[in-house]
Amino acid sequence: MSRYWSSLTHGLTPYVPGEQPRMTELVKLNTNENPIGPSPRALEAIRNEATDALRLYPDPQANALRAALARYHQVRPEQVFVGNGSDEVLAHAFAALLKHDAPLLFPDITYSFYPVYCRLFGIAYEAVPLDEKMHIRIADYQRPAGALIVPNPNAPTGIALSRAEIATLLAQHPDAPVVIDEAYVDFGAETAIPLVASHPNLLVVQTMSKSRALAGLRIGYAIGDADLIEALNRVKDSFNSYPLGRPVQAGAIASLEDEGYFQQARARVIEGRGRLNRGLVRLGFDVLPSSANFVFARHPAHAGAALAAALRQRAVIVRHFSAPRIADYLRITVGSDGQIDRLLSALSEILGSKPAAA
Amino acid sequence: MSRYWSSLTHGLTPYVPGEQPRMTELVKLNTNENPIGPSPRALEAIRNEATDALRLYPDPQANALRAALARYHQVRPEQVFVGNGSDEVLAHAFAALLKHDAPLLFPDITYSFYPVYCRLFGIAYEAVPLDEKMHIRIADYQRPAGALIVPNPNAPTGIALSRAEIATLLAQHPDAPVVIDEAYVDFGAETAIPLVASHPNLLVVQTMSKSRALAGLRIGYAIGDADLIEALNRVKDSFNSYPLGRPVQAGAIASLEDEGYFQQARARVIEGRGRLNRGLVRLGFDVLPSSANFVFARHPAHAGAALAAALRQRAVIVRHFSAPRIADYLRITVGSDGQIDRLLSALSEILGSKPAAA
Repeated sequence: MSRYWSSLTHGLTPYVPGEQPRMTELVKLNTNENPIGPSPRALEAIRNEATDALRLYPDPQANALRAALARYHQVRPEQVFVGNGSDEVLAHAFAALLKHDAPLLFPDITYSFYPVYCRLFGIAYEAVPLDEKMHIRIADYQRPAGALIVPNPNAPTGIALSRAEIATLLAQHPDAPVVIDEAYVDFGAETAIPLVASHPNLLVVQTMSKSRALAGLRIGYAIGDADLIEALNRVKDSFNSYPLGRPVQAGAIASLEDEGYFQQARARVIEGRGRLNRGLVRLGFDVLPSSANFVFARHPAHAGAALAAALRQRAVIVRHFSAPRIADYLRITVGSDGQIDRLLSALSEILGSKPAAA
Repeated sequence: MSRYWSSLTHGLTPYVPGEQPRMTELVKLNTNENPIGPSPRALEAIRNEATDALRLYPDPQANALRAALARYHQVRPEQVFVGNGSDEVLAHAFAALLKHDAPLLFPDITYSFYPVYCRLFGIAYEAVPLDEKMHIRIADYQRPAGALIVPNPNAPTGIALSRAEIATLLAQHPDAPVVIDEAYVDFGAETAIPLVASHPNLLVVQTMSKSRALAGLRIGYAIGDADLIEALNRVKDSFNSYPLGRPVQAGAIASLEDEGYFQQARARVIEGRGRLNRGLVRLGFDVLPSSANFVFARHPAHAGAALAAALRQRAVIVRHFSAPRIADYLRITVGSDGQIDRLLSALSEILGSKPAAA
């Protein structure tokens, strides 16, 4: 605390990301990283950018990358915004679009960064409880709202809404901007991007960190009506002129051009999720139906914090949240086959049962 | 303009960065890019990061990079903050440290992004006029201030303050945070970093875009008392968990480790500035005494806008600002020897005189 700080700073208690320990032999299933690496074409494109041309600024509008995203998602380039990770895209969306007189709505169990952005930008919000099955119930959002943000699939539950449910939500709130945060959509949910053409209030946010395994590069983007994108650009251009570096833009474009690799990698994670799911169920866990690259699971006889601590003693790190309704759950990333095996055998040791063949 | 925008968005008219045309044969002297490429060790480090490990998030605290910067600048790691370009570091500094009841002070001719940040964060400011020689006069800053930000050397004049003058400024304002923006300091000014130990209100911001020729990678940093750095971290951690990608952190560290290359490259730019200066003087220009990798010059008989347009017709791009006191000046980046020759011969063609041997 300091007399030099702006008053804003005193009120901030920042989001704490999942820890990034650098121990060897660690089974790290706490930050939803992809077990499979990025497209080799993306790696080659990054290497090709390591030249004297790095003395030059990147394209501040990222025109080539936005054009590639527009082609991929069948929209126009002026409907695409890119940022340094989807967290940055979301931050700009909170500032540019989500601050209104009526409160921002989001689920009460959701990405824990949302209230952090609200504090940063002074946005009033209401958290709408999930139902008893931990689902988002669209009918519960039929209340006055300045704006809405909903992750699909939701985090950390992994449970998805259908595109029809998103359409209902949009119909409920034609006058409010609605952000659908699709960080995990590629692992089994339906994207809302086809609804952009008919809904000027819809902004869809995606990331290349998860399904494209480019977390180490930092690429997020938003797709929506050109008018919403213009709002994001105004805030971005008042903040950081050149957010995405040259290797980043090149790697992102190459990843989009390698559709075969993307589909294969995605399918392997979905298959791994099935194995992880079945293994956890055999060990007695309740596992929520996940459309993401993680599962959210609890054991009826064991507290979440105790399980997470016992796993950590066995060099397996999963994410545990202490919030009331989810304190007994573990969020477990879908790792490689070897990591899933290590997790399941550590759990069966902890639970005193035999390792279950997945 | 849209009903979906936050009220903030309506009020923003963003900073427009120097254009980045992608014509070949263009002599691009408008964005102060370094004519010499980055350290080959930095390029190798970036290539070495193009592996499957990109599936993993970068270190959110950038510990290895902050440690390298701390060693380089002889401070402690908790006195170092890193961001995605110095624009992002400045943005966080404006939000975290520069908003107070009394106005923020900065020179009336300076980096044109400062008023843009003020609008974004709702900061009241007063611009303090330069003296008749376009110098910052420290005595003029002896007035009530919530905070101060001063570039050293100043932009776009290129004129530097001495470290003793910065110390005087700090002594005038012991209760206000003072940011010294040293984007261009390595080209001939004295850094204020040695004053950090004795001044808890001093934050020094630097970039790797200019003297380290890594504009394409996006790396900026700040050095100051740990308490000021904590304020920046609180805002950063409420905005973007992982701002610097893995290739960026690795490339930045490798650049710092190649001191010989850095010193050589710096010396070559300073030498080029001498040539450019002499050439412009021979053509009749008034050239301000620059400590940066650009010069700010005007011709007594030719308007700045007309000269910039005539140069553009000859595929030479320089920066022209239309603000009152500087509308007759051109800001010209110190390019390669070949670029300097192209610029000087284009100018002598425009001015109707013979090309002057530099």
